[in-house]
Amino acid sequence: MTDRLPVALPKAYRLLNHGPTVLVGSAHAGRRNVMAAAWSMPVDFSPPKVAVVIDRNTLTRELVDASGEFSLNVPTRAIARETLAVGSISGRDTDKFAPGTGVRAFEGSQIGAPLIEGCLAWLECRVIPEPHNQERYDLFLGEVVAAWADPRAFRDGHWQFGTAETRESAGSGGSRSLHYIAGGNFFETGEAFEVKP
Amino acid sequence: MTDRLPVALPKAYRLLNHGPTVLVGSAHAGRRNVMAAAWSMPVDFSPPKVAVVIDRNTLTRELVDASGEFSLNVPTRAIARETLAVGSISGRDTDKFAPGTGVRAFEGSQIGAPLIEGCLAWLECRVIPEPHNQERYDLFLGEVVAAWADPRAFRDGHWQFGTAETRESAGSGGSRSLHYIAGGNFFETGEAFEVKP
Repeated sequence: MTDRLPVALPKAYRLLNHGPTVLVGSAHAGRRNVMAAAWSMPVDFSPPKVAVVIDRNTLTRELVDASGEFSLNVPTRAIARETLAVGSISGRDTDKFAPGTGVRAFEGSQIGAPLIEGCLAWLECRVIPEPHNQERYDLFLGEVVAAWADPRAFRDGHWQFGTAETRESAGSGGSRSLHYIAGGNFFETGEAFEVKP
Repeated sequence: MTDRLPVALPKAYRLLNHGPTVLVGSAHAGRRNVMAAAWSMPVDFSPPKVAVVIDRNTLTRELVDASGEFSLNVPTRAIARETLAVGSISGRDTDKFAPGTGVRAFEGSQIGAPLIEGCLAWLECRVIPEPHNQERYDLFLGEVVAAWADPRAFRDGHWQFGTAETRESAGSGGSRSLHYIAGGNFFETGEAFEVKP
């Protein structure tokens, strides 16, 4: 089981503020799915809200439309292969959680959509219904109703990787978040630094 | 003058796909401004569309509301200090382009909003009017009508930094893009890598 602790909701935006690629978990009536999404962002601090683009042709869209819920999961470089895979195939054609895929789920506390093992952080979201955005732009807004993080990666409201102190151990372990570009090309999250005003 | 070449519009989403923090340029009736925004993302490929959150209390908001235009500029670590500064002060209190700020603008090709020198890439955007999103969520959608990049950073549709080959020269020069967290803390964009399906 992935180690995780709750994240205070007013700090939940920090899990997405640096623009990582996420996995979107969804479920309805006994079916569940996961896909990758580079297009997500926070839109408010407290209560925390997020935006994510969910293409109208995906199974994820069908499940989110039906359930009004989704999870956003922040994957690591260690599961970049699985991230690319779940973003490249349709849940209509295959069970993305089947044995051998390496993709495993666990249950959230507030929503029925699956959370994904091996991620750094998890946001449980309820859709804020905005039919015009959904239909015209595939754009979904959600309120974050619970948030979690692996305390090795994020604790006390702060990311723990990328500092000079943690660079060796964290960087070599593939435990940083991901930033997708296109065609299987990613950046990992790089060095942390602070600017003093 | 910053070196720059046009980016084909169907590839413009790649300038934002990895989730960098951006600078938002705006102008109306002889006034101009720039602010930082961590909350932006692509929402469509072609024609390219973007989303960005612009707080209702900012001068940027007033200028974007009045002009229907904004620029998104992708800053580097070399100008992280200026990025933090323009995100921390209001254009109502100070001219962010005044001598000594280190912030300089140049003119776009399609819009009146300023583009910012020293950035890696520039997107000229026209607001897609969605008053409900703007008023309720401070959420703006824009169509990208022109895009540019410094060819040392992005050319032929691909980012050029972060590979093993360019790591030394690019990393040490502060020429990578930025990912803001909070409280003056940033990540730089890290190592590039490719996953083969």
